[in-house]
Amino acid sequence: MRARVHFTVAELDPAGLQDRTVVVLDILRATSSMVAALAAGARAIYPASNPEEAVRLASSLGREDTLLCGERKGLKVEGFHLGNSPAEFTPEKVAGKRLIMNTTNGTRALLSVTTAERVYVAALLNLAAVARVVARAEELTILCAGREDRFALEDAVCAGLLLERISELRDEEPELDDAASAAVVLSESFTPDAEFLAETIAGQALAEIGLGGDAQDCARLDVHDIVPVMSERMIRLEDAS
Amino acid sequence: MRARVHFTVAELDPAGLQDRTVVVLDILRATSSMVAALAAGARAIYPASNPEEAVRLASSLGREDTLLCGERKGLKVEGFHLGNSPAEFTPEKVAGKRLIMNTTNGTRALLSVTTAERVYVAALLNLAAVARVVARAEELTILCAGREDRFALEDAVCAGLLLERISELRDEEPELDDAASAAVVLSESFTPDAEFLAETIAGQALAEIGLGGDAQDCARLDVHDIVPVMSERMIRLEDAS
Repeated sequence: MRARVHFTVAELDPAGLQDRTVVVLDILRATSSMVAALAAGARAIYPASNPEEAVRLASSLGREDTLLCGERKGLKVEGFHLGNSPAEFTPEKVAGKRLIMNTTNGTRALLSVTTAERVYVAALLNLAAVARVVARAEELTILCAGREDRFALEDAVCAGLLLERISELRDEEPELDDAASAAVVLSESFTPDAEFLAETIAGQALAEIGLGGDAQDCARLDVHDIVPVMSERMIRLEDAS
Repeated sequence: MRARVHFTVAELDPAGLQDRTVVVLDILRATSSMVAALAAGARAIYPASNPEEAVRLASSLGREDTLLCGERKGLKVEGFHLGNSPAEFTPEKVAGKRLIMNTTNGTRALLSVTTAERVYVAALLNLAAVARVVARAEELTILCAGREDRFALEDAVCAGLLLERISELRDEEPELDDAASAAVVLSESFTPDAEFLAETIAGQALAEIGLGGDAQDCARLDVHDIVPVMSERMIRLEDAS
């Protein structure tokens, strides 16, 4: 396996993705919320590029059984059904529903890799399951959503942890680019628990708007044995195997 | 001190630089070559945004005492006097000369921070001298040139080493953003010697075009006690004090 990591969307060359398996990470919080939503029985998630597109998409899909979700500056978009906290995505609210989601970093990252062969959505919540599926890939790209086009430590540490899990599942070590080597070192130095997440720049920003509890919910390692996969701009569950 | 690190030029917000002290790093090889050139007696270095602009700038400055320097795909630009290997910048060639320089990553990084209050040029070669000067700053930005808009491990490790040096010189620990925290961890995990530089993606690319020896020349830690500073798009020496 040859593995590349991109710490921001800007580092990505979308033209070079055709033959690649891509994993998108936005630990605080978009991909954590997506995993929570699908684990809670949501039927599908549609990433939208802005709140207006989300509303248009809801109209075209039919408002029934459709929930608008997402944040601006961390807080629920006005008029939307749900924000971007994993705890909001309960079976009572999302089971059987289609979710249309727009967030500052995560949905943008997902929409930047639509040309890839395979796109998986990962968080700490489902890391082991994703590792099992992508360990078979020969050309792997891990895209960290980052924070407003800048490096986000929690995504980098999760990328390194995913690479370590993959190494354990394969006979040979993956060939790493510079960013992948850095991510592995970072995952060996930081423990991705709630305390760590709370201390990152994104975690501090969440605490400032009263959403500090999200760090706890996003830090729950391997609690969901599910693998969300994006196809035709729609994210659904693939059997973890 | 509040310290930020940007691993690529794309991570930078040029609008937010007015009150900041900026250090630009492109270890393999642009800032190493600049430090070598000024240590060898070059009078000034003018970063240019492309080879054509370099030629125009040479015409306007007067061709006498002016050398065109730089690379494309690692190799000397056709018709230029010098490439981008530190070993080329000898006193015999550059003493008393004005150098106009264009490289793929380093000169672009420098030209992206012209709005900053102070801009310093650093490499492993002059790291201690730069650390002494910038340790007094309250708002520090370390800009890694990276490699074609992507993370470059050697620049990240050098950024971390610079932050460690600064910590030793100050009474209080600098306040670090996510990327700065990551850089410090990386500098504790990788030793920035010639072997390390040769194994990075940039180092491997240099070896492939027959310039593997540059890694050795760029790894010489603290050999030049000089601090290049950029003002009005011109880089000259400041007294290290």
